[in-house]
Amino acid sequence: MSLTQHLSTPISSSSSAFVAHSNFNSRTKNVSLPAKRFSICKCIAAPQEAQTAYKTTVSRNANMAKLQAGYLFPEISRRRAAHLLKYPDAQVISLGIGDTTEPIPEVITSAMEKRSRALSTLEGYSGYGAEQGEKALRAAIASTFYRNLGIEEDDIFVSDGAKCDLSRLQVVFGADVTIAVQDPSYPVYVDSGVIMGQTGQFQKDDQKFVGIEYMKCTPENGFFPDLSSVSRTDIIFFCSPNNPTGAAATREQLTQLVNFAKDNGSIIVYDSAYAMYASKDLPHSIFEIPGAKEVAIETSSFSKYAGFTGVRLGWTAVPKQLLFSDGFPVAKDFNRIVCTCFNGASNIAQAGGLACLSPEGLKAMHEVIDFYKENTNIIVETFNSLGFNVYGGKNAPYVWVHFPGRSSWDVFSEILEKTHVVTTPGSGFGPAGEGFIRVSAFGHRSNVLEACKRFKQLYK
Amino acid sequence: MSLTQHLSTPISSSSSAFVAHSNFNSRTKNVSLPAKRFSICKCIAAPQEAQTAYKTTVSRNANMAKLQAGYLFPEISRRRAAHLLKYPDAQVISLGIGDTTEPIPEVITSAMEKRSRALSTLEGYSGYGAEQGEKALRAAIASTFYRNLGIEEDDIFVSDGAKCDLSRLQVVFGADVTIAVQDPSYPVYVDSGVIMGQTGQFQKDDQKFVGIEYMKCTPENGFFPDLSSVSRTDIIFFCSPNNPTGAAATREQLTQLVNFAKDNGSIIVYDSAYAMYASKDLPHSIFEIPGAKEVAIETSSFSKYAGFTGVRLGWTAVPKQLLFSDGFPVAKDFNRIVCTCFNGASNIAQAGGLACLSPEGLKAMHEVIDFYKENTNIIVETFNSLGFNVYGGKNAPYVWVHFPGRSSWDVFSEILEKTHVVTTPGSGFGPAGEGFIRVSAFGHRSNVLEACKRFKQLYK
Repeated sequence: MSLTQHLSTPISSSSSAFVAHSNFNSRTKNVSLPAKRFSICKCIAAPQEAQTAYKTTVSRNANMAKLQAGYLFPEISRRRAAHLLKYPDAQVISLGIGDTTEPIPEVITSAMEKRSRALSTLEGYSGYGAEQGEKALRAAIASTFYRNLGIEEDDIFVSDGAKCDLSRLQVVFGADVTIAVQDPSYPVYVDSGVIMGQTGQFQKDDQKFVGIEYMKCTPENGFFPDLSSVSRTDIIFFCSPNNPTGAAATREQLTQLVNFAKDNGSIIVYDSAYAMYASKDLPHSIFEIPGAKEVAIETSSFSKYAGFTGVRLGWTAVPKQLLFSDGFPVAKDFNRIVCTCFNGASNIAQAGGLACLSPEGLKAMHEVIDFYKENTNIIVETFNSLGFNVYGGKNAPYVWVHFPGRSSWDVFSEILEKTHVVTTPGSGFGPAGEGFIRVSAFGHRSNVLEACKRFKQLYK
Repeated sequence: MSLTQHLSTPISSSSSAFVAHSNFNSRTKNVSLPAKRFSICKCIAAPQEAQTAYKTTVSRNANMAKLQAGYLFPEISRRRAAHLLKYPDAQVISLGIGDTTEPIPEVITSAMEKRSRALSTLEGYSGYGAEQGEKALRAAIASTFYRNLGIEEDDIFVSDGAKCDLSRLQVVFGADVTIAVQDPSYPVYVDSGVIMGQTGQFQKDDQKFVGIEYMKCTPENGFFPDLSSVSRTDIIFFCSPNNPTGAAATREQLTQLVNFAKDNGSIIVYDSAYAMYASKDLPHSIFEIPGAKEVAIETSSFSKYAGFTGVRLGWTAVPKQLLFSDGFPVAKDFNRIVCTCFNGASNIAQAGGLACLSPEGLKAMHEVIDFYKENTNIIVETFNSLGFNVYGGKNAPYVWVHFPGRSSWDVFSEILEKTHVVTTPGSGFGPAGEGFIRVSAFGHRSNVLEACKRFKQLYK
């Protein structure tokens, strides 16, 4: 890539699912637009030296360069911008990026107000907190989500979100591990692995990075991988209820997964960020499966439960029973990374998290979740009524719509062009997402209803 | 290391300066103690299987294993705990860890209250913000700290703190760069380099990691390295005003540093977290030096200005003029990491940051800083009156006291034993810190005065 090319490529966000701020819901007045792009002239020292800008002699990290492929959300952002140029008066609705839209229940925000106010008093001020999180919050997370599962307060590491913890886990694992991901999956698992040097180059022909085991999840296998055909890897990223397919694994399936990990000596990184959307009969934590504490880590978040996408609060449970091959506890290395590369979640956010887990807070969170689940039902019914095969939705805020034989990007463009609704092309989550569209249920009711009305007009 | 040894080693924090919560100031009621230690019996499956705990077959990251050496603050923590066992009624005062103690000015907390409250309303709610930070805050940082320096809004990346950004920068650089650090220095530069695989093993004889260039900073060279004897590295970490020595580089010295980087094609990572403590005649940003935008990154924080150690807010300025050897802008890779491994600072903290930079907020921050500087004067005068050579203090909240010919740890123990005051042994920041003690000026006035009274009794 020439210098000129570098300079003319805008600074892009990442391919992560929640990255580009192509956020077009009806409340754009509160939404930050993408960072101002680098303009070409600013990258060069002076006009007369356009070809001779000073360069350091530091080599660019080769792993970063591998990431060039697969910029999902910036591409959506570009297409949306082009769409708005073409239709400047269009009332664009976003059911694309999985961003929460409903206010945070007052029982939760009032706790954050109170903590903010206390910080201005001698009695209420606190400085550095424990990097692992406040003791009361760790205890509340353990007792709310892991009661009777053998996960204790000191297994819980409070964080600024699951996405951030996933990268910290990758730093713990380092460059020499092999990884497996569901295909399709949340792009951060793959991207963080590439960044750490766990992979080879991206292969355009099969849309995969060399060295990653892609576990196909399709309607044919009920969105649960055929483990008999999956190669052993050190790390297995597994998200249930799943982003993007919305599929939730059963107890039997998770038991298979845990046994598979145990047989192979692998570590499962289980992403349960949508667990509260799952129906009661389904497992809500990997640690409900016997033996999981010896093979699994679980990461989760308040983002999709309490609307904390901007407040930033999550956690990761690393059982003390989980050991590397030399017997060293994984939790000790994770603790070291949390202490060296992080300084704890904001104390105000933690006060909010504690309020989330009070009886009133839990009730309020369930109401918000139920609201989004009603949105999901509306979207599912709409596509069902139009004769599509629709997956997900029941146990997750994502609806996975099949357009067999068609390109995801073509369908994305068709929907945007004809309905002004932004969705997410399934192929952006991995090659097995080709032919699908992810429709997010995060939105104001009026927008969801309007979008569904437009879908019905388009596909009637 | 045997399994038994692993299990009997408590989970430790890190060697980072702000890590272990050995926080013994007079307001311990608000301070979290360290995470509960792993107990031995919890690491093994069942009592009867004590020697046969299940282990995965995943190898531990060899870089993490290198970190075993140099656990500074946990060691202090252990010694403090032993001290309290010995003297259960002692009124221990901490001038050790650099943790802020004074309340956050109300003009700032009221903005965070307001933002918290707004999140419970339809009009005031916002979800994911830009990973790079809110536009208004980026603009305010650029105009407050970099006016007329050519650093623009889109060069600023808002974060949850300088410590976190340092690790994200290391992820950008990857395993193949070489690094230089001031000796002594904030331990995170070294530790994050070790974690990324930039170094060899720790050598006990010289207390250094193989592969790191340690730039000696002692009274003999005015705490500025003799650059003629420093080997070229890809990255140079440089902190001014310095933690731990309190030394602040002059304009001439920083010009030397920038020229040195330019001659070598190196990248300076300039930590200016204490810049507001420096007197007016000193440079407050590396970007005051001509040409610095082509060789430097600057990271900073609201922690020590506004008492945001627990609120978590900082920023990093990556000029678009800074290029890797292939011409690729460093800012683009940093942006990619910020988007993939991070999701922005808490929106509530950002509201606080914006209030910090209002005229009233700036005035209030200066008052807090002046308060801590008065503490510094008291500490400096105390040790001066006792005949010690005292460095730092003037432009930083740290006082660096020389005990020539003595071991830092011996002096630390003597002070703790005889005055119940916790300091930090200088050797914990690097081999050139041997013979020094760092005394932090973060504390309530009454505690600082009491500590100084005890110092005078001990060393009169």
